[in-house]
Amino acid sequence: MSSSAPERRLRADRARQAADVIRQQVVQRAFPDGVLPDEMFLATEFSVSRNTIREALDLLREEGLIERVPGVGTVVVTEKYAHGLNHLMGLAETLHEHGEVTNDVRAAGPIKPPSPVAQRLRLGDGEQVVYVERLRRLNGLPLSLDLTYLAMDVGLPLLDEDLRHRDIFSLIEQTSGQRLGTAAVTLEAVNADLHAATVLEVPKGAALLVVERLSHFADGRPVDLEFIRMRGDRLTMRAECRRTP
Amino acid sequence: MSSSAPERRLRADRARQAADVIRQQVVQRAFPDGVLPDEMFLATEFSVSRNTIREALDLLREEGLIERVPGVGTVVVTEKYAHGLNHLMGLAETLHEHGEVTNDVRAAGPIKPPSPVAQRLRLGDGEQVVYVERLRRLNGLPLSLDLTYLAMDVGLPLLDEDLRHRDIFSLIEQTSGQRLGTAAVTLEAVNADLHAATVLEVPKGAALLVVERLSHFADGRPVDLEFIRMRGDRLTMRAECRRTP
Repeated sequence: MSSSAPERRLRADRARQAADVIRQQVVQRAFPDGVLPDEMFLATEFSVSRNTIREALDLLREEGLIERVPGVGTVVVTEKYAHGLNHLMGLAETLHEHGEVTNDVRAAGPIKPPSPVAQRLRLGDGEQVVYVERLRRLNGLPLSLDLTYLAMDVGLPLLDEDLRHRDIFSLIEQTSGQRLGTAAVTLEAVNADLHAATVLEVPKGAALLVVERLSHFADGRPVDLEFIRMRGDRLTMRAECRRTP
Repeated sequence: MSSSAPERRLRADRARQAADVIRQQVVQRAFPDGVLPDEMFLATEFSVSRNTIREALDLLREEGLIERVPGVGTVVVTEKYAHGLNHLMGLAETLHEHGEVTNDVRAAGPIKPPSPVAQRLRLGDGEQVVYVERLRRLNGLPLSLDLTYLAMDVGLPLLDEDLRHRDIFSLIEQTSGQRLGTAAVTLEAVNADLHAATVLEVPKGAALLVVERLSHFADGRPVDLEFIRMRGDRLTMRAECRRTP
């Protein structure tokens, strides 16, 4: 396809362009009271027709981000929370100003790890790990489903602690007396399978942010391997990156 | 729900647990020749039944990551490429060892920016920006759809350059004579709308990684605002994060 002037593209392209900007405004809480400006205003703002703006709003409605309320206008439905990627923080630490994080502890106990997990945690043959599975909620609503593998000496003391209300990071530091250092994080977008969707209370196929995170003690020893499924409509990740010479 | 021993959960939970580990093995290219071990081996590895492993493989097949090839076994279908989040790099810079990145330039030219874009780029009233829309491919297959807003003095010289084969980052540094510094990045998981799906050659609703990235010159001036839709089945993002005291 050859390049064309920006104003001569398909309506669908122009609608997506507007939707992207409005999505970020929603995430950044740019709309007072969570009410979007009216279509006429937005059409002028984005130099497009009202039909194009309607199509842009339809896209965000399909994502479950906004909805039309008769007599009020277009309102933000879901608050999205930002989770920082540069700093290693637990969810409760990150979101404490937004409400209470609680965890349904779905499983907790020692298991024999599969070898890829043992390798990541640099364990020897036959060493067990502590496995903890939690559904994490903010003010009661599901945010993420976390599967955690912990080195045995680090994980066992946690089984007697308040896993329902505390972040694993802060519990690890408290019970081990050691500080965490760095973590290696991988992020992917994955469609929710039926069962994960049911647990997270989203439709089957909903876009999830899937994070693998290997956290180390400050001395470099890997102790905590997590697989996290975050609801795409409720969490965003933020990072700062730097150009290297 | 009260906590239970890890081995006493539903099969769906145990299948997801295995699928998460196998997904990361695929991403990290842990399988020689892209062929997974057989079901019996995996069942032993994960201490689960063969039915549970089948269910785990079904999940990854639904994601389009693997497929069954009669007479061969289960093979990796899609190679996933990792894009670093800590270092600000263009796609071609990142993926040069995997093949050739080419860009279909769908639009390129000056536009009046919507005010949220003007604010992010710290532009005055009435200042225009250069808008560039590209579908980016690796060895011909779509990877991402990038919508880019550039400050006018930075963007105009790019219109005469080889946008089809070059990263915008390296073109900016070449034509401006200035280095880029930091970028603020926001990541989300979003389901592909029909039109974006068509452009990226994925099914409607496929999970996309949506990135907003604001890049600055080394002196702190914001010059490049991008909205990037990445195919969830082809790209992952990597980051290192650090526990702060």
